[in-house]
Amino acid sequence: MTQFSFHLDATDQDTSARAGRWVTPHGVVETPAFMPVGTLATVKGLLPDQLKAVGAQMVLSNTYHLALRPGAEIVRELGGLHRFMDWDGPILTDSGGFQVFSLARLRKLDDEKAVFRSHIDGSLLELSPERAIQIQQDLGADCIMCLDECPPANDVPENIRAAVDRTTLWAKRCREAQSRDDQALFGIVQGGIREELRTRSASGLVPIDFPGYAVGGLSVGEAPADMYRTLDFTVPQLPSEKPRYLMGVGRPEDIVEAVCRGIDLFDCVMPTRNGRNAMAFTSRGPVRLRNAVHRNDESPLDPECECTACQRYSRAYLRHLFVAKEMLGGILVSLHNIAFYQKLVRDLRIAVNNGTVAEFRTNQLARWQTQP
Amino acid sequence: MTQFSFHLDATDQDTSARAGRWVTPHGVVETPAFMPVGTLATVKGLLPDQLKAVGAQMVLSNTYHLALRPGAEIVRELGGLHRFMDWDGPILTDSGGFQVFSLARLRKLDDEKAVFRSHIDGSLLELSPERAIQIQQDLGADCIMCLDECPPANDVPENIRAAVDRTTLWAKRCREAQSRDDQALFGIVQGGIREELRTRSASGLVPIDFPGYAVGGLSVGEAPADMYRTLDFTVPQLPSEKPRYLMGVGRPEDIVEAVCRGIDLFDCVMPTRNGRNAMAFTSRGPVRLRNAVHRNDESPLDPECECTACQRYSRAYLRHLFVAKEMLGGILVSLHNIAFYQKLVRDLRIAVNNGTVAEFRTNQLARWQTQP
Repeated sequence: MTQFSFHLDATDQDTSARAGRWVTPHGVVETPAFMPVGTLATVKGLLPDQLKAVGAQMVLSNTYHLALRPGAEIVRELGGLHRFMDWDGPILTDSGGFQVFSLARLRKLDDEKAVFRSHIDGSLLELSPERAIQIQQDLGADCIMCLDECPPANDVPENIRAAVDRTTLWAKRCREAQSRDDQALFGIVQGGIREELRTRSASGLVPIDFPGYAVGGLSVGEAPADMYRTLDFTVPQLPSEKPRYLMGVGRPEDIVEAVCRGIDLFDCVMPTRNGRNAMAFTSRGPVRLRNAVHRNDESPLDPECECTACQRYSRAYLRHLFVAKEMLGGILVSLHNIAFYQKLVRDLRIAVNNGTVAEFRTNQLARWQTQP
Repeated sequence: MTQFSFHLDATDQDTSARAGRWVTPHGVVETPAFMPVGTLATVKGLLPDQLKAVGAQMVLSNTYHLALRPGAEIVRELGGLHRFMDWDGPILTDSGGFQVFSLARLRKLDDEKAVFRSHIDGSLLELSPERAIQIQQDLGADCIMCLDECPPANDVPENIRAAVDRTTLWAKRCREAQSRDDQALFGIVQGGIREELRTRSASGLVPIDFPGYAVGGLSVGEAPADMYRTLDFTVPQLPSEKPRYLMGVGRPEDIVEAVCRGIDLFDCVMPTRNGRNAMAFTSRGPVRLRNAVHRNDESPLDPECECTACQRYSRAYLRHLFVAKEMLGGILVSLHNIAFYQKLVRDLRIAVNNGTVAEFRTNQLARWQTQP
């Protein structure tokens, strides 16, 4: 594990925000960092060079989806995920657990493994901690995740506690199953929005001494205030000298709030999914490009953005692409939204280094609420 | 019209192929040239820089489609088509005639105009020669087309002759309607596959002294041999000192055969449409990327191609993208197919300059018939 190290450059005085550099076998990730989601070994519609041009340093890919298509062995045979998808920077793969519990039809779940049906062809598959690690070793990402049990957000406390305990049990088995030393394996803290269950999860996982920790089971339907409160009592229980990753989050305001609570890494489908649906994040709040008001608007999508969509095209052109169902609309606005998220985490890094995070948070949240 | 000039650099001895340079207000087009089709002011899924990187010099856009969405006035207000779609090279717009006769429901057609229903919302619209020119002047392409009548390929000779005569009548009115002097207006020769009708059309149009001539009404269902035969007796009737454009053609072999018959300009949706459907043109013939044979094939799509798809990715990855219904598959193979077409016309230019066109034709046609 000598190829990894995490350096904290600055810690904010007013909040728990930190700025750091995470060294991985495929390069350095400056934190706070946002990872665009490349579910099936492609960030939808975008080429690696386009992602790099807007500042993306690390991408996420999905174990469950890749295990089904094209299969982890195929990816391994073809030289691993970096070569397969032509991304030479750091990659993170999730464990597949989230999709097994949300997307597949679960057939049997016990301490040994999850048996489920593929959402594609209904075939019967299984995922154990050992298998999750094997698949992720085949894929070859820089950062891999322990298999966790992800109960529904509104599940009863008994079930969430049982999921916490199973997640801890599985984390130990994942750790033991790992044989590659060039992949950082993260533990995932579960426990819903209850303090005693998050504490139970963290106290079970921290002694295993993972090189980083993820907070899972948030942004699954709970109110933003509940998510922030959960981070308030969860993050301080994670080692401060290791990277902390908030899985699947989130809206720009969620990222600001989570950074203020000590989170370093983020991933979310919003910039690309919303981009394909003509919804753009801008410095002045969200813009819905299908609206008729943009019909002959020659101004750029976001005058403060330096991406291709904003530098080269008018809102009228982008609207035309969506109205005409042209692929380029989703491509350009996905690119813009990723540029927006990258600028956000870059601005947060700068604010941490300048000691101006609290001010940044206040100003930014106020601006986004002003619809242009 | 001083911003245009056409220079012939070489004419082949064995065939009627020629190599030239066509100077337009937005740059020089080396001929033979292939124009990627950007129907709705976007070559589907690709950015202008990507098109230029594979050698595209000029693109085509569709008058009918743009007149319906977003509307020619909107494009004019936004600075014209070049600025709207961020393509600073030459652009050609067709007249809209082909789509009115193939896509819309025709309601009334006489010497005055065509009245038809929009294929999008059924609204009643009309297109006269004067209106076709007005729309194309609003769009602002470098090269614009006369409104022509395009009868079905299997129509009776009486109807095709009537269409020829109406096309000649309309060509004169288009010429009179044109007020901008920075757009080259081309006449379109019609007449199906009968020599006397093509001769009738050419002899009506050539005296109008257009700065270039298009051959329309081919590649509409007739056998390739009929198309080549029609070119044999049509092209020699067009002025040799002006560019000749074969509309909507075609397959790689059609382009080779048409260049050998003296055609300079081409457009076709095949590279992009086939690309979106996982069908690639390669130096060794067509490749269908969905085939299972490519499942774990780490070789490039075409080892002789320098495009991003071939330089950065395996056939296995490209297949995976199509199987997983990922946008990037269509993007990459569209890009590759355009690169293939650009290399084809570039190779043809070189062959004309070297006097090796006949040899090139023989070798190339043989290679494409060998499936890899």
